[in-house]
Amino acid sequence: MFALADLDVPIVGAPLAGGPATVELAAAVCEAGGLGSLAGALRTPEQLEADIAAMRERTSRPFAVNVFEAQRRAGDPDEVARYAQALTAEGRSLGEARHDDDRLREKLALLVEARPAVVSFTFGCPARPTIDRLRAAGCAVWVTVTTPEEAVFAAGLGADALVVQGVEAGGHRGGFDDDAPGDYGLLALLQLVDAAVEVPLVAAGGIMTGRAVAAVLAAGAAAAQLGSALLRTPEAGTSAPHREALAAGDRPTGLTRAFSGRLARGIVNRFQREHADAPSAYPEVHHLTTPMRAAARAEGDAESINLWAGQAYPLAREAPAAQIVRDLAAEAQARLRELAGG
Amino acid sequence: MFALADLDVPIVGAPLAGGPATVELAAAVCEAGGLGSLAGALRTPEQLEADIAAMRERTSRPFAVNVFEAQRRAGDPDEVARYAQALTAEGRSLGEARHDDDRLREKLALLVEARPAVVSFTFGCPARPTIDRLRAAGCAVWVTVTTPEEAVFAAGLGADALVVQGVEAGGHRGGFDDDAPGDYGLLALLQLVDAAVEVPLVAAGGIMTGRAVAAVLAAGAAAAQLGSALLRTPEAGTSAPHREALAAGDRPTGLTRAFSGRLARGIVNRFQREHADAPSAYPEVHHLTTPMRAAARAEGDAESINLWAGQAYPLAREAPAAQIVRDLAAEAQARLRELAGG
Repeated sequence: MFALADLDVPIVGAPLAGGPATVELAAAVCEAGGLGSLAGALRTPEQLEADIAAMRERTSRPFAVNVFEAQRRAGDPDEVARYAQALTAEGRSLGEARHDDDRLREKLALLVEARPAVVSFTFGCPARPTIDRLRAAGCAVWVTVTTPEEAVFAAGLGADALVVQGVEAGGHRGGFDDDAPGDYGLLALLQLVDAAVEVPLVAAGGIMTGRAVAAVLAAGAAAAQLGSALLRTPEAGTSAPHREALAAGDRPTGLTRAFSGRLARGIVNRFQREHADAPSAYPEVHHLTTPMRAAARAEGDAESINLWAGQAYPLAREAPAAQIVRDLAAEAQARLRELAGG
Repeated sequence: MFALADLDVPIVGAPLAGGPATVELAAAVCEAGGLGSLAGALRTPEQLEADIAAMRERTSRPFAVNVFEAQRRAGDPDEVARYAQALTAEGRSLGEARHDDDRLREKLALLVEARPAVVSFTFGCPARPTIDRLRAAGCAVWVTVTTPEEAVFAAGLGADALVVQGVEAGGHRGGFDDDAPGDYGLLALLQLVDAAVEVPLVAAGGIMTGRAVAAVLAAGAAAAQLGSALLRTPEAGTSAPHREALAAGDRPTGLTRAFSGRLARGIVNRFQREHADAPSAYPEVHHLTTPMRAAARAEGDAESINLWAGQAYPLAREAPAAQIVRDLAAEAQARLRELAGG
């Protein structure tokens, strides 16, 4: 079974579901010696199957597939209806605010057949039978956590590694419960989780430089996960207005439920500011805003789309993914050597 | 002038004003090879003068004195009056909600005479003439920052080093503006500040282990500042109910203005929960709650006092300060050597 220690460089590419993820990006991370991730979420099982096939044409190295755990709790219909009403003022067409599981069962059946090296979960911990089934198929199972309690729970159920996500991270808070999303800074969380469980840890959240990669390795992580650091690569599917906002680097990030109904960090824009009272209702709000965001994206309207970004996003470089992975790994190793010699 | 590179071990003791700070604790950190800090805030100039004299009897090593920059903006009197009214339900005597500068001018005059190696500022950046006067007296001037913008400002005014405080930190957010306290995780903030200024950085916020010390050094800091990690030492003046809450380690921390009128992180207790709507008014609210907290502390009532603690506080060890400083420094060095060899 895949182990993080087998990687040439201790870097994982974040899944980046919902636009930035591409097969090209994941494959480039793998070919540079890291572990690329395909976004299985927000794709149909048919698309995911095709992505895995395309990935295997591009690389023979191990890779991960990320999926979203099904959300058991539906949003409050009255709150969702109120929010849908508020969004009519945007003047763009809205989607149907339905609750679904992103066809998770079908995707899991597909993954048991396709056997990627890693299947990683976000938004919850799978039940033990699911973990056992994937492991029996030869997949290492990773679970994203944002609190020490979640880490203990997931390790107890048999997770092979944990993605430890600090509050710095761009995109969605990946933990189990949107009502208790965790506000731990990455370094505090790494220490607490490192002290509580024995499984390898992947550190995620605001890691943009080789020095930060070195830092999370020093703090006990087996690898650093890069998200925002890859958004400006040519391989990423990041939209033009999103790229422009990242490149400008002049606005702060904030946490919001306005786009998806689940807490996520993005560069603060008009939509995020005006809809600070969006309800906790995933994926209902995600479906509601999907057509609106697609239209705004096509028009280059950066004030009406999710500009996911971690807190250190102004340091994101515009360069090929393989170069970023190799540069950060080399800078991390150089930094550790420099300090150990002192 | 003092330079961080001159320390035997790259560890700074946090000032811990308001109870935990003692001359014994600061001296123990110095004697272990780190830089101890005397809390000049919430002490009279006469007490501070005596503390400095006592410090010099205990150690000939360099030490820091921390002061709070004066708050230009007084709290809204109506909001303060409303809060004072709400606090009558606590059934304990309250203090006078006055606005003052903690006798900062007198303390600065004293420090120019006493010439500690470092004078560090919290809650704001001193004006250039103050910085120049202290530097002319031979004191290195440090400024606490919680955002990249504050870091650029303070470095531009001539600060010799910056204390870079992440949102993980226990006690008060140390930046310039209580209305914009910064929510950067330490690792994200260190990367952004490291890229923006040339001065040495002291990393602060949730650093409890040798691995975390190694991490902030890897991220570019010249030293790690320990706060909560020292609260359970015998040298600290930490109250009995505070020590018990730290030792239990079973409750989360949260940010609150309930005790002082300025945002601070403590273990969430009844008072913190019930007064989530406390106004931004420092030091008015601090003075208002001081007698109430003193009485509760004497009674061992942990639900009515500030239980300042950083996010990783459950990892705080009960051990002498010198041992903690030496252990964490040795563990950090061992970790860096281990990783550099890999």
